[in-house]
Amino acid sequence: MKIIELHESVTASNDRDADEIRKKMKEQGVLLINLMSSPGSGKTVLLSATIQALKDKYKIGVMEADIESDVDARHIEALGAESIQVHTDGMCHMDAGMTEEALHNMKEKNDLIFLENVGNLICPAEFDTGAGKNVMILSVPEGDDKPLKYPLMFQKSDVLIISKIDTMTYFDFNLERCQKYARELNPDIAIFPLSAKTEEGMAEWTDWLESTLKEWRK
Amino acid sequence: MKIIELHESVTASNDRDADEIRKKMKEQGVLLINLMSSPGSGKTVLLSATIQALKDKYKIGVMEADIESDVDARHIEALGAESIQVHTDGMCHMDAGMTEEALHNMKEKNDLIFLENVGNLICPAEFDTGAGKNVMILSVPEGDDKPLKYPLMFQKSDVLIISKIDTMTYFDFNLERCQKYARELNPDIAIFPLSAKTEEGMAEWTDWLESTLKEWRK
Repeated sequence: MKIIELHESVTASNDRDADEIRKKMKEQGVLLINLMSSPGSGKTVLLSATIQALKDKYKIGVMEADIESDVDARHIEALGAESIQVHTDGMCHMDAGMTEEALHNMKEKNDLIFLENVGNLICPAEFDTGAGKNVMILSVPEGDDKPLKYPLMFQKSDVLIISKIDTMTYFDFNLERCQKYARELNPDIAIFPLSAKTEEGMAEWTDWLESTLKEWRK
Repeated sequence: MKIIELHESVTASNDRDADEIRKKMKEQGVLLINLMSSPGSGKTVLLSATIQALKDKYKIGVMEADIESDVDARHIEALGAESIQVHTDGMCHMDAGMTEEALHNMKEKNDLIFLENVGNLICPAEFDTGAGKNVMILSVPEGDDKPLKYPLMFQKSDVLIISKIDTMTYFDFNLERCQKYARELNPDIAIFPLSAKTEEGMAEWTDWLESTLKEWRK
């Protein structure tokens, strides 16, 4: 398993770089998904369940971005997906240049590549990574008011996954209210409430991934 | 209730500004606590329980820093504590200049002032706000591996509160392992596992606040 030390892109033209990555990935028929959330919302657990569900049909790669450690990448690698660890040199987000450097280190011909962005609801929303789709996770224990506090993340995401719904009875989380807040910020956002633990709602999410990949390759 | 729109300090001398704030607060006998955590780890719930426990003995003020919204400040104000809302203009952290501007807007003669920093485990750790003590919260649903991923926050904090321990049976969280990781990064860190909901562990935390304030005023 590779560990790559990244530093912030010097280029000011992040958006242009991101568009180039997106164009190239589309030509290659590879769908890059930028996965964003707070620390501990269940990105890695969701990725594991997603890989388990789809690995017989698609080749899946994962780029784990963290400030430090390689615990997630080791876990993903054990599932049989290509996995690289990206260290961001203290940076609170990935940008297009960093994503491109990470992509260069992926050796397999993957159908789907997940970029597990740094755990943070703020900074990653500000930088286009060149991903085909942006997916955010909000976990039930975090609370249904988060769209009010971190609006940009909800505005920039194509998909909102509401994770850990098996803990809904334990926390005071109003699913309807959360969806309403999210859709006020972003009327087009697709919302998938799910539990990677009980598998409730997982099929809707993996169906979305399959149909989006198909659309991406048209 | 006041809402203040803040912009990043232009001064490069954040550390010097922070030291000045600390010195001035010490002369006034006011203890400023910088409270940091991920989104949704329970900062506001902990603050509410803390205010309830101490408000008959001390005057407590709260500065709520958020990118947007004023839901937390309204909640705190309803408890009878002085509360101001600070908007960070999209910034992912508070710095010393922003803290000073916020302090100028506090009108009461408080004993304790809490700065509820922006929900983020990364950026707030990089900026000294001038607080007398730095306190971080890690909630049980976030997972016991967070010290490995966000080491700077654990290194910069005087206190680690492990919150929502009433959900421990629901999540795979090893308290001993988490404490071990945290102490490897910061041997002096005080650790308080607690639940603001059941009040388990709350007395240890409020005792620490009381003795620290006493020490601060010596």
